[in-house]
Amino acid sequence: MPVGTVGSVKAVSQDLLERLGVQILLGNTYHLYLRPGLDVVRRMGGLHHFMGWRRAILTDSGGFQVFSLNDLRKVTEEGVTFRSHLDGSTHFLSPERAMEVQIGLGADIIMAFDECTEYPADRARLRESMEMTLRWAARSKKYFEEHKEEVPWASSQLSAPSSQKGGGGSDQWLVTSGKSDERETSDQALITNHSTQALFGIVQGGMDRELRRESALRTIEIGFPGYAIGGLSVGEPRELTMEMIAEVLPLLPADKPRYVMGVGYPDEIEQYARMGVDMMDCVLPTRAARHALLFTSEGRINIKNKQYAEDQGPPDPNCDCMVCRRYSRAYLRHLMQAGEALSATLNTIHNLAYYLGIMRRVRADLQSQPAPSLRSGIH
Amino acid sequence: MPVGTVGSVKAVSQDLLERLGVQILLGNTYHLYLRPGLDVVRRMGGLHHFMGWRRAILTDSGGFQVFSLNDLRKVTEEGVTFRSHLDGSTHFLSPERAMEVQIGLGADIIMAFDECTEYPADRARLRESMEMTLRWAARSKKYFEEHKEEVPWASSQLSAPSSQKGGGGSDQWLVTSGKSDERETSDQALITNHSTQALFGIVQGGMDRELRRESALRTIEIGFPGYAIGGLSVGEPRELTMEMIAEVLPLLPADKPRYVMGVGYPDEIEQYARMGVDMMDCVLPTRAARHALLFTSEGRINIKNKQYAEDQGPPDPNCDCMVCRRYSRAYLRHLMQAGEALSATLNTIHNLAYYLGIMRRVRADLQSQPAPSLRSGIH
Repeated sequence: MPVGTVGSVKAVSQDLLERLGVQILLGNTYHLYLRPGLDVVRRMGGLHHFMGWRRAILTDSGGFQVFSLNDLRKVTEEGVTFRSHLDGSTHFLSPERAMEVQIGLGADIIMAFDECTEYPADRARLRESMEMTLRWAARSKKYFEEHKEEVPWASSQLSAPSSQKGGGGSDQWLVTSGKSDERETSDQALITNHSTQALFGIVQGGMDRELRRESALRTIEIGFPGYAIGGLSVGEPRELTMEMIAEVLPLLPADKPRYVMGVGYPDEIEQYARMGVDMMDCVLPTRAARHALLFTSEGRINIKNKQYAEDQGPPDPNCDCMVCRRYSRAYLRHLMQAGEALSATLNTIHNLAYYLGIMRRVRADLQSQPAPSLRSGIH
Repeated sequence: MPVGTVGSVKAVSQDLLERLGVQILLGNTYHLYLRPGLDVVRRMGGLHHFMGWRRAILTDSGGFQVFSLNDLRKVTEEGVTFRSHLDGSTHFLSPERAMEVQIGLGADIIMAFDECTEYPADRARLRESMEMTLRWAARSKKYFEEHKEEVPWASSQLSAPSSQKGGGGSDQWLVTSGKSDERETSDQALITNHSTQALFGIVQGGMDRELRRESALRTIEIGFPGYAIGGLSVGEPRELTMEMIAEVLPLLPADKPRYVMGVGYPDEIEQYARMGVDMMDCVLPTRAARHALLFTSEGRINIKNKQYAEDQGPPDPNCDCMVCRRYSRAYLRHLMQAGEALSATLNTIHNLAYYLGIMRRVRADLQSQPAPSLRSGIH
């Protein structure tokens, strides 16, 4: 999932994301809550309609961003008080409020409010944090169940006419095709036509195998239509990340999406996908692109380097994305040097194409060579 | 002609320019000369190949930008010494050097090196400046005729196989279709397959009708495959701009392109086109877009205004560009407020679509109702 922080995958239009084959993108609740604000997005019919994106969206709970505001937040059992990085104003997020906001934003998949435990942390701190995340997961689910009908799709032009209000299993989260936007009838259009959102639970427990297992089992007990593994990629060595994923993954129901949050490098996401991970998100391909870093089949290249000033070759000789088909390394280097806005756009398109290409390859491999031992869930 | 200052129409990819129907764009010799530099572009096979643009390009002579560097330039009969706005380094442009640079950049249409006279200016100054522009026009033509075969197309993958080196009239400047780029075979592709570039002359003379007439006739005497009217839109009232155009236009050969440089607002370009102007360029649609100003069928709007915060309507209800079909004013306003890069891209696409739409309408009107008295040249 490419990350569209504030209602836009930075520098890339929705049209291009569709052409790249993006099926789902991630929006950050924290950022959207502050700007343009929940009320605006809700009154505009939800995030899909607001940003003109008819495919799937997942919003995080806002927790991760809030916990990153080290000096600007205070955590209690009730929730988190924090100050906006934009204007210093004070806000409060709790499991209930995070659900209210995410229901109002109206993504297809929303996330329970959790505490992303810092790394490193001792065992007492890890257990305490994990226990709170479990209590918050239950509160998230309770609020969601009581308010899930308040999603703005009902009043939006984006809600499918066939939408069965209140019916249907909440695990039918996959988007299906449909057309109802009055201004856009592209046959590529996908639309959420299920009745309500899908709320996913999040497994925490730091880098402690025991706690991870316990967190997984007790989160499953609460019951969600999909499960995420959070609290990874927070500074730990990569072997530890993989160890935790390997520990938790077999415990999660194989018939529900399994999502590892906030990863990763190209080789990482391939590895995790082959282990059975169904979903991942990361700012890396987009953020790195804006800082001149391109991922290619020949490794990472910094397109700002002087060595590319007259390099007529495409960014990646083995890539057939719209950037590699048309532009040279010399041109991309020039755009970066000249501070041209197009630089971020083209770099990002290539990196996203590269990431999505990896996932496409893995999917094709998994379909031709199923690995049941990794994908059958609890043994 | 949209302006692509440094080898990119700011924030818009070449792909989108094609979809918008852009047939020709303008590159600024001054900017390209400084960055990435003549040698780089020439070694990359010229500007078309460097920026992956297979349709037509026109470069200005660099004169206008250099003359705008008030404190950083010194003009003599020989040429202009100026200091780079980037690093303060000293450079020299003369008619010969401006031709050398433009031949190296390899645009389809290049411009004679002229002095854009300041406004206001007294008659003595205007005559002196006009006379120098005429001498510079002759020097430009002489250098061009002696060096026109040095255009980099020959060694570039972009040069059409059928290119008749050294043959063909230099007024056959219109691009024709063809395919020769090894990495892109879109059937929309256009390519320059004529032998050499077309050098246009520029009429000066300030806001003096007599001098304008004299400049036009003496420029025609030198002989060019197309003529521009320069030195307008430099601060004078619009009636004066139109008066000068009306004075000069009937003197210019009707069978050659007639180009008014650096205009203008939507109503202006429509007016001038209906008077018989064939080509215009202006940064207005692109620069205004980046500053939140959208041109619409209902007038100009500043998309930053709070009144659009929850406006679900398209930027222009009478526009069917890809932005108006998909996005709301509320979303464009949000992108601007949030400082998202996509803001510049979407605003620019709409403004260019609006400008190009005007020209398309005028062309259709002229085809159905020819106005011979305005288009038959000298009477």
